[in-house]
Amino acid sequence: MKDTYDFGLVGLGVMGRNFILNVADNGFSAFGNDLDLDKVNALIQEGGDTQKVNASDDAKTFIEALSTPRKIMLLVPAGKIVDAVIENLLPLLDKDDIIIDGGNSYFTDTDRRDSYLAEKGIHFFGAGVSGGASGARLGPSIMPGGNREAYQHVKPIFEAVSAKYKGEPCVTYLGPKSAGNYVKMVHNGIEYGLMQLTSEIYDLLKKGGDFNNNELHQTYSKWNSGRLQSFLVQITSEIFAQDDELGEGKLVDKILDKAKQKGTGKWTSQNAMDLGIPVPSIDIAVSMREISALKDERITADKLYDRPAIEHMDKITLEKLAEEALYFSFIITYAQGLHQLADASNEYGYELEIAEIAKIWRAGCIIRAGLLADITEAFNADKNLPNLLLSPSFIKKVQSTVDSTRKLVAYAAKNGIPTPGLSNSLTYFDAYTSSRLPLNLIQAQRDYFGSHTYERLDRDGVFHTEWEK
Amino acid sequence: MKDTYDFGLVGLGVMGRNFILNVADNGFSAFGNDLDLDKVNALIQEGGDTQKVNASDDAKTFIEALSTPRKIMLLVPAGKIVDAVIENLLPLLDKDDIIIDGGNSYFTDTDRRDSYLAEKGIHFFGAGVSGGASGARLGPSIMPGGNREAYQHVKPIFEAVSAKYKGEPCVTYLGPKSAGNYVKMVHNGIEYGLMQLTSEIYDLLKKGGDFNNNELHQTYSKWNSGRLQSFLVQITSEIFAQDDELGEGKLVDKILDKAKQKGTGKWTSQNAMDLGIPVPSIDIAVSMREISALKDERITADKLYDRPAIEHMDKITLEKLAEEALYFSFIITYAQGLHQLADASNEYGYELEIAEIAKIWRAGCIIRAGLLADITEAFNADKNLPNLLLSPSFIKKVQSTVDSTRKLVAYAAKNGIPTPGLSNSLTYFDAYTSSRLPLNLIQAQRDYFGSHTYERLDRDGVFHTEWEK
Repeated sequence: MKDTYDFGLVGLGVMGRNFILNVADNGFSAFGNDLDLDKVNALIQEGGDTQKVNASDDAKTFIEALSTPRKIMLLVPAGKIVDAVIENLLPLLDKDDIIIDGGNSYFTDTDRRDSYLAEKGIHFFGAGVSGGASGARLGPSIMPGGNREAYQHVKPIFEAVSAKYKGEPCVTYLGPKSAGNYVKMVHNGIEYGLMQLTSEIYDLLKKGGDFNNNELHQTYSKWNSGRLQSFLVQITSEIFAQDDELGEGKLVDKILDKAKQKGTGKWTSQNAMDLGIPVPSIDIAVSMREISALKDERITADKLYDRPAIEHMDKITLEKLAEEALYFSFIITYAQGLHQLADASNEYGYELEIAEIAKIWRAGCIIRAGLLADITEAFNADKNLPNLLLSPSFIKKVQSTVDSTRKLVAYAAKNGIPTPGLSNSLTYFDAYTSSRLPLNLIQAQRDYFGSHTYERLDRDGVFHTEWEK
Repeated sequence: MKDTYDFGLVGLGVMGRNFILNVADNGFSAFGNDLDLDKVNALIQEGGDTQKVNASDDAKTFIEALSTPRKIMLLVPAGKIVDAVIENLLPLLDKDDIIIDGGNSYFTDTDRRDSYLAEKGIHFFGAGVSGGASGARLGPSIMPGGNREAYQHVKPIFEAVSAKYKGEPCVTYLGPKSAGNYVKMVHNGIEYGLMQLTSEIYDLLKKGGDFNNNELHQTYSKWNSGRLQSFLVQITSEIFAQDDELGEGKLVDKILDKAKQKGTGKWTSQNAMDLGIPVPSIDIAVSMREISALKDERITADKLYDRPAIEHMDKITLEKLAEEALYFSFIITYAQGLHQLADASNEYGYELEIAEIAKIWRAGCIIRAGLLADITEAFNADKNLPNLLLSPSFIKKVQSTVDSTRKLVAYAAKNGIPTPGLSNSLTYFDAYTSSRLPLNLIQAQRDYFGSHTYERLDRDGVFHTEWEK
């Protein structure tokens, strides 16, 4: 056993245990802490013979085992538990020690903790970790924000344990205060959007083209070796192949269609509205999880209304349209999320570099995708690109796939298959690329009933009209 | 001049001045207060000869002029000014006096003020007022929430000044605390949705059917004498007839297509997400105002992308489809907002009666519409109706208009005309009436990468699978 350990970790659940073993695998010694002695013992059993891992349920033992400045990561549920753990550790810490919150904390909570701990001479990081349990073990994408100087102490460990994309670590210092938690929040918002899109395409293939689970498996698998290559398309392919251990057939058909949520998608949408940035492909993914939860009402409503008979499409045509529409809508969803990040950076002083964010999302995280290499290049070519849709390298990708999206949205609307992720991506594109929208009428209405005034196309100034009734 | 006045009003802007003159017209004496002496004098000049209206810029004079318990309405901008006015009045008030905030205050602010003033023996009401300047003068819809007993003092005045629908006043006691502000917030959210829909239909008629302003005026005017009868359809008709005083042609064509917002639509969407209630027709209206604000980016993007040539539709067919789609989408938008109110009532203890709310929206307010009489009946027939779509009296209205909505959404998607309000209303309907949605895949994905577990269709319990990779 070592005298002092390089890295401390509080919270030895699946994520924490995996993260600490990952740290040890990469040549750093690590000490774990959890109130639950079983979890402490499980970790010692699993990693103790490496001489690099140890653990205790006692906070003092834990703190004394760490080399200074201490680097202590928390992988505990977001919310009050984070504050409780911090209060517990605080009397034991020395100046310049570093606490890293690796959970999905709300960004304003991180700002509050950052100010509070800065007063006490402790450095605080909000560092979102994406990649699930297996990412934590084998290499996640890590999104740290906090004090730039203090990051130098954390950097070697995070770079070692993170996922690598062509040798480049999927972690970088993102910005001050809650920059890391904010980026992780929007990452999750994009994740909601992409998941909703993959599920709509599944529905279309199944209902419109009679694809069975094996064909769905083959299709998503083929797509995953093309331009749609991504973690979510890959696991979707694998999901369709999974047998049901408790019965006949494939598991996916037995799973209840009520999708839960833990809040990060909702936060992304709510905060985008505070910023005034449109992210309708994310908003609708949140709404669809909500609608899915209304299962009993849906069953009742289904009996009350007739649904159009579905006009079937041939598999080859449908598969081609679906691939193009999914690619189009993935691009639009990333575009919306990155637009939100650029605006949040100005609003909250994060000084984010969008290219750097796209870069650390290329591997390790849930939204990793071949597309992110192209997105990284687009923002490297123009650091101040207001929106991905304005990148010269994306015009062709978008223009060549929008027609299939039009066809599929039209088909779905006529046949009663709800594809709101596709349609919100399409209408976002159509609205964003319209120099003239009909919202002049809305300004006229607002002036009519509320004297809210309007601007004109042909001259500067603010105008109000006494409308004739 | 009278010795004591029945009603006090702070804030003599357009809304306040009009409201106080309305009070006086209905037989009550009213005293106004504003820091701006010009506004005080303007009111005295306009209403002084009725012997029923007086005003002062001095708070003490104002308070002493009112009969007790004093009924003092504030029509000042939401936010800190409300708190400042309350602090200013507070030392001058007596126990059981009543303060009524008539602005669009955020509902949690109202709850805070309610508790604060209750401790001091003062009754507080949040009472949203809708109808714009002309409604305030001639009869608005008023949405009061607060102490039920204290409402008895306010009731005669509010019932007298409010709009009337077939003789019934468009005001009723809604519930405790912020019930009134909450209802007004959702009223405004619905308003956002309906305005977006009227603007999309305008765009479709113009681009798809070459309707000129005169034809648009005629069309909306005709619709306003049918089942689409509503304030917003009526004023839309009038807007198309308005000449441009500063140039040739109609004013609507000169108005800049950047729609502003004051926040109540955004609050509705954000709070619906907190409740977990889907309101995508409102969400997208908020997003579209945001996209409209990105005028410079839109102009740039427009040049980069090709748009499909629009396939024109004959005017008669298009007009019929448009009328049906607008009716369908109006119903869906009301359904979403009322669903949110029912859920908020449980969450916040408002004890709202949805039929009573629909009833006081039938006249006076911005979202007044013939439809609201039908909605009132639907919720009178079943007080616990979870969603308007489940009302037997709405099935035919919805079923008979959904096909036209399908056609129009398909047409718009193919022709590059953004109609996200229509498409979100349609997909909401298609999802809400689907007993089975593809979100089983999303639950599978969540279990795959995050071990978030899932439920099954065929047996109770919570399950997790070690997915084969």
